[in-house]
Amino acid sequence: MPSKERLKQIASLGSAKFRQKYGQFVVEGQKSVHELIHSSFDVLDVLVTSEFLSKNIKIDFPFEVIGNKDFEKISPFDTPSGILAVSKWKNFEEKDFSSLPNVTLALDGIRDPGNLGTIIRTADWFGIEHILLSKDCTDIYNHKAISSTMGSFTRVKWMYTDLQNWVYKFESYGFILGGSSIYQIQFKKPALLIIGSESKGISAELKKNIKNKVSIPSYGKAESLNAAIAAAIGMEYAAKQINGSLLKP
Amino acid sequence: MPSKERLKQIASLGSAKFRQKYGQFVVEGQKSVHELIHSSFDVLDVLVTSEFLSKNIKIDFPFEVIGNKDFEKISPFDTPSGILAVSKWKNFEEKDFSSLPNVTLALDGIRDPGNLGTIIRTADWFGIEHILLSKDCTDIYNHKAISSTMGSFTRVKWMYTDLQNWVYKFESYGFILGGSSIYQIQFKKPALLIIGSESKGISAELKKNIKNKVSIPSYGKAESLNAAIAAAIGMEYAAKQINGSLLKP
Repeated sequence: MPSKERLKQIASLGSAKFRQKYGQFVVEGQKSVHELIHSSFDVLDVLVTSEFLSKNIKIDFPFEVIGNKDFEKISPFDTPSGILAVSKWKNFEEKDFSSLPNVTLALDGIRDPGNLGTIIRTADWFGIEHILLSKDCTDIYNHKAISSTMGSFTRVKWMYTDLQNWVYKFESYGFILGGSSIYQIQFKKPALLIIGSESKGISAELKKNIKNKVSIPSYGKAESLNAAIAAAIGMEYAAKQINGSLLKP
Repeated sequence: MPSKERLKQIASLGSAKFRQKYGQFVVEGQKSVHELIHSSFDVLDVLVTSEFLSKNIKIDFPFEVIGNKDFEKISPFDTPSGILAVSKWKNFEEKDFSSLPNVTLALDGIRDPGNLGTIIRTADWFGIEHILLSKDCTDIYNHKAISSTMGSFTRVKWMYTDLQNWVYKFESYGFILGGSSIYQIQFKKPALLIIGSESKGISAELKKNIKNKVSIPSYGKAESLNAAIAAAIGMEYAAKQINGSLLKP
């Protein structure tokens, strides 16, 4: 049974400041907790309500039971799921990105945690394991971001960095309104797919240094696509063109 | 200046029950309100805070100014934008769907308002204007759904219906894990693209009656794609194959 002090500490992990202070984060929901337990992350606590337990007998890892009220206090969600884990966080380093993979994703100023998490889940679907994040991207350890990855955060590497230092190392493809049609693009490795922020797109400074400006043809009237949607279509094209063979060398 | 009574009524539109009762809904944010004003919807109120006004001089439509506190009370968002409109809702009918367009989208049990809104925005990008919704889909007039469409709700038609009654009228394509690779599919018109719910996919009953079961090849380890992402990739393929020419007959 975790101490009152520990429960208070877990509750504080809803804020980026305390995640940073303790180097820990919360993962909620059965599927995500399952993936976390079976990953290389260092898991500190698994907490479950008796209500959750009564409905879900198949939990194949150690856990502790706490009261519903305590769970509500520590859960970062408005509608708590009844199962959460606390894990030490990982910080990937430049050496994790030293050998350039065939496809890398770069996110420039993605602010919405749900978008960030969905992009990571999609990258994991298409076998893209390396993700560079500009420093103004939202915190990947935000509970909504982690939750939206559906466990895929355990299988990708990421680094907050200055994207300008990376763009030259790759064949770069920036997704930009008014770029060349993606139908005409032949992706070359090592490819860097760059997705801009929800409101401003790719920053002007970075845009200058991107070799290939790519856009997704429209047949309708919406002014733009959601960032996670543009990222998904870009990844799908890149993954298909190199047909898996380059993604898994 | 809207009366206290009216402000209270607007605040109640955060709930589906009162949207139903009054046949009205709230649209928040500058871009969405702009699109609403320039659409065929019947707009009842446009309300702006003086703070919003001081930062945004270019408002090209009539509005009323209310206090920040009143705005916070009526806004359905945790972080109010400072501009919202109230509109009468539209209910499309079977006659709006009587001539089958080249591509129609069917959503089976989409529960997340953000996903629903994003799917509508993406449909509008790819020129798909007709959307059939199973009756257990979330309410399209939910503020998060409307907001995620970024104004595209003004350009599409939708109907809550029993999808079983529609699937036979089209060449149907259901997006299902383990279906045929989308690389092998040639979309034929009138096409119905069917996307299942976030948690359960397409319902078993409906699945039986779908002619073409399609899946999106994976090169990674995620178990599934987010529903809005799968929908987007499906729409992109269908739109590209018929190259715009069938979408705009």
